[in-house]
Amino acid sequence: MSYKAPLEEVLFTLEHIAGITALSQRPGLEAADPETARAVLTETGRLCEEVIAPLNAPADRAPSTWEAGEVTTSAGFKEAWKAYVDGGWPGLSHPEEFGGQALPKVIGAAAAEMLNAANLSFALCPLLTDGAIEALLTAGSDEMKALYLPKLIAGTWTGTMNLTEPQAGSDLALLRTRAERSEDGSYRLFGTKIFITYGEHDLAENICHLVLARTPDAPAGVRGISLFLVPKFLPDAQGNPGTRNDVHCTSIEHKLGIKASPTAVLQFGDQGGATGFLIGEENRGLEYMFVMMNAARFAVGMQGVAISERALQQATSYARERIQSRPVDGSARESAAIIHHPDIRRLLMKMRALTEGGRALAYYAAALNDLAHHGEGAETAALYELLVPLVKGFCTENAVQVASDGIQIHGGMGFIEETGAAQHLRDARILPIYEGTTAIQANDFLGRKILRDSGRTARALIARIAATEADLAAGGRAARDYAVSLGAARKAFEDALGFSLEKAGSDPNVAWAGSVPLLMLAGNLVAGWQLGRGLLAAEAALSAGGDSAFLQSRIAVAQFYAAHLLPEAALQRDRILYGAASLLALPPETY
Amino acid sequence: MSYKAPLEEVLFTLEHIAGITALSQRPGLEAADPETARAVLTETGRLCEEVIAPLNAPADRAPSTWEAGEVTTSAGFKEAWKAYVDGGWPGLSHPEEFGGQALPKVIGAAAAEMLNAANLSFALCPLLTDGAIEALLTAGSDEMKALYLPKLIAGTWTGTMNLTEPQAGSDLALLRTRAERSEDGSYRLFGTKIFITYGEHDLAENICHLVLARTPDAPAGVRGISLFLVPKFLPDAQGNPGTRNDVHCTSIEHKLGIKASPTAVLQFGDQGGATGFLIGEENRGLEYMFVMMNAARFAVGMQGVAISERALQQATSYARERIQSRPVDGSARESAAIIHHPDIRRLLMKMRALTEGGRALAYYAAALNDLAHHGEGAETAALYELLVPLVKGFCTENAVQVASDGIQIHGGMGFIEETGAAQHLRDARILPIYEGTTAIQANDFLGRKILRDSGRTARALIARIAATEADLAAGGRAARDYAVSLGAARKAFEDALGFSLEKAGSDPNVAWAGSVPLLMLAGNLVAGWQLGRGLLAAEAALSAGGDSAFLQSRIAVAQFYAAHLLPEAALQRDRILYGAASLLALPPETY
Repeated sequence: MSYKAPLEEVLFTLEHIAGITALSQRPGLEAADPETARAVLTETGRLCEEVIAPLNAPADRAPSTWEAGEVTTSAGFKEAWKAYVDGGWPGLSHPEEFGGQALPKVIGAAAAEMLNAANLSFALCPLLTDGAIEALLTAGSDEMKALYLPKLIAGTWTGTMNLTEPQAGSDLALLRTRAERSEDGSYRLFGTKIFITYGEHDLAENICHLVLARTPDAPAGVRGISLFLVPKFLPDAQGNPGTRNDVHCTSIEHKLGIKASPTAVLQFGDQGGATGFLIGEENRGLEYMFVMMNAARFAVGMQGVAISERALQQATSYARERIQSRPVDGSARESAAIIHHPDIRRLLMKMRALTEGGRALAYYAAALNDLAHHGEGAETAALYELLVPLVKGFCTENAVQVASDGIQIHGGMGFIEETGAAQHLRDARILPIYEGTTAIQANDFLGRKILRDSGRTARALIARIAATEADLAAGGRAARDYAVSLGAARKAFEDALGFSLEKAGSDPNVAWAGSVPLLMLAGNLVAGWQLGRGLLAAEAALSAGGDSAFLQSRIAVAQFYAAHLLPEAALQRDRILYGAASLLALPPETY
Repeated sequence: MSYKAPLEEVLFTLEHIAGITALSQRPGLEAADPETARAVLTETGRLCEEVIAPLNAPADRAPSTWEAGEVTTSAGFKEAWKAYVDGGWPGLSHPEEFGGQALPKVIGAAAAEMLNAANLSFALCPLLTDGAIEALLTAGSDEMKALYLPKLIAGTWTGTMNLTEPQAGSDLALLRTRAERSEDGSYRLFGTKIFITYGEHDLAENICHLVLARTPDAPAGVRGISLFLVPKFLPDAQGNPGTRNDVHCTSIEHKLGIKASPTAVLQFGDQGGATGFLIGEENRGLEYMFVMMNAARFAVGMQGVAISERALQQATSYARERIQSRPVDGSARESAAIIHHPDIRRLLMKMRALTEGGRALAYYAAALNDLAHHGEGAETAALYELLVPLVKGFCTENAVQVASDGIQIHGGMGFIEETGAAQHLRDARILPIYEGTTAIQANDFLGRKILRDSGRTARALIARIAATEADLAAGGRAARDYAVSLGAARKAFEDALGFSLEKAGSDPNVAWAGSVPLLMLAGNLVAGWQLGRGLLAAEAALSAGGDSAFLQSRIAVAQFYAAHLLPEAALQRDRILYGAASLLALPPETY
């Protein structure tokens, strides 16, 4: 089946969890008002449903192809890209100064969810381009910005992120690509980059590669990495694509999923050196890279929500139509649609709870980012930064589970490729890996976001959650029950946080043995917290006479989350506190 | 990487968990003695490693193909099948009377694990043939047995199970294939069957289809189903393949995994009727089908253990070789093999614990079956029957998780098909679906195995577990700690069992809402119980001066299981006891 943009769920989350009405009161965030949001997202939904989603399955069956250095994208991608560009979508969240529409990040996140749900492979091209734009905005020279940003923001050119090399994945200290200074101030780059998403394609007239490399006299390790802009075609005097640069796609990968998205091996400098332009200062590449990386990590978390929503829609549709077996409660004498069977309902509710919980977590984080850039200060920014690895880690791990559950609901038909359910699992499986594996997110969460400020921001998060608990405790029966579940999960996080802070110094193996459980515990807690806020909002809206079925759904999904998913927090806490000894008992050599 | 048969782990489990030395004291089970087991499994391992495993990845890339009704299996399959047949492997566990070697089921299970780990697609052909053999042994006439069993047991002919039709998957009441009586006592069959594993292929000279169908005057529903034998070629007077029967393969499926295993659509009777021979009596087909189904369900559970072992081996190998990032404990100044990073160790230990736990559960169950057929009575048989849905449900759900974790350990390389890690996930994903989905296993567990005897067999299981707790409590420090974890999980199962027994009558939707959690809780408990027995055995063997590193591994894996996996039991209990209301809150129409 095709994709239907979940407009009402998205708008409910924007309004009641991201708080866009309040956001829109702030200078610079006026466009966050609910009416603009509805108008923009209605149009986004239409484009996604009508133009982009229908290409998803056919492009999986007939992926991008490579021949003699050129990549041909799947049938229909060029036309869809043109429609996307003509509608001005690439510039949705980018500055007006360079031709964008400067919508708040939270609106951009919702639009990105729809685009990714429609077609993950297609949506990767703007996702990477956004990262390049972010890096240029952060560290590019004025000249560079003026030359490249309007093209990237219009979508006539696209961008890539070139980090990985065969020996250097998570470990960028091992980078070998080198950049030699030329007399004209540019650089010549030599090296091989792998796993470059949309590193070569036929959608746009030029591709701007952002490339990490080392200058000859750079210090060893990550402090000796610089960031370069290496356009596929060097801009001529008019700023149009001119000379072909010495960067070439030598192959594309044969992957489990996202097959329509070309994953390139790029060879730099085989014909004398690829011309590159330094972004910012030498040896500060890692710092700039983290800017685009953080944006990309958030975006990949949104991909997790998106593919979860898509898998949920497909499974719900099948469960409504497939007739099989009588209900266990004897309510019908004939075989019924499987959606009437309790275990199918359990799976669908779990899929919904994880999808809505992830969406709530991600939109809330996006709103924090908007606030941090419009009036609120460093604390809000730090809170956003704390949540980014949760958005990435939690929403993508869940996406794999949700897509797998979607197959399960289809029974044997789920295993047949024509059904389409299997593609979602194949596509989703990359999400907990690229832009930093879940373990890397956990390193970021524990190492950079918790230890560096000795847990201060994490404790600020806890205080916010406790405030919601108080609100819930003052509410109706459902809210009061929710407060208990949320409080138990919050307490579990406090325990685990205290333990991890203590062990990180005294016994780092023990702390890091629990780093992914800590990340998942925190993601679960924050998602559950936001659904609790949603429950309060739904109860209030019900009292005010709102759409009863819709609001009852929000409440039921939150209650399911509280009963089935929040209790995992205590289990994770126990694994962290009591699980390290057995985890570390065997010397790695004996495995 | 290729496959290495885990001979020592397998033999340890056979000896200390399945108790083969004690088994071999019983008349008819003499071949269970450890020396015979080692000899047989050494040879099995060699065949699997050298002949069958190397075909696994190439056959995934170049699967079986269909043309004009004929299926050509992947390159090398015919030769491998010949080697398998020439070595007498198809007859390993079958009666000597028909040419088999009559080895105990527990040895057959271990051999099947190796075969499936080597090549799941290949191993499906004997798996289905075994089901057909089992059904003929149960209900076939003497003449039928004499004609077909020697061929099937020799592997010169193969067997299939024809249950599913487009409208009838889990719900066999919806079957439409019909069988009309002929004057000569045979039947003519008409209908379409789908998802027929090895329904057509070129490995053997004949294929014996076991087909569920309705006679014209049969009662509606599952009480009107009969079982027929429909050979592809009708045996001539000498018992050799004669006239081509009217059953034809109209296509094979394009699947997510097990691509080398041809999944056929079979058309019966398009040219006047497929000749079929009634097995047993009319309208008792479902009963006979359950015989082959139970054997097949156990075998699919073994497939789960097998693919887990294979994924574990591949991930361990990669983790040892891949150099990336410095250890967090500062123990090295250079980047190290990723097996030194705590989260990689966590994933590998989890994969091991689930694999070894599943193996322990399955081999223990197989030993019960041997005992039930050799001296022990109905109670042992009932206990085996109780464990079959656990073997199927628990080991296959875990296989998907283990294979997915295996990809995660590979990072980006895991997503590239050439690496081979992704194939294990694609292959594993069918296991919780075919031969009855996990929800169907849960129906069997709760409905047939628990409710029918009002929980008597389940309570006998609990008593056995409590006895092991007492043994553990009398042991050393590790054993005493283990007793506490095991006791908590056993208590959780008791609570959930009591609740489910109570609700099944009064509120079946509530009972069935918790049926899969109950199944998973019980599987987890029994696996943990068996690993606890393994821990006691390992401690005893250590005291007796056994191989220290090997035995320490067994203990550490059990302790990891106790700290990280057994505590899930309490979470599942809580979901069962407190989770039904929110699960059932929304009317299915509103999903």
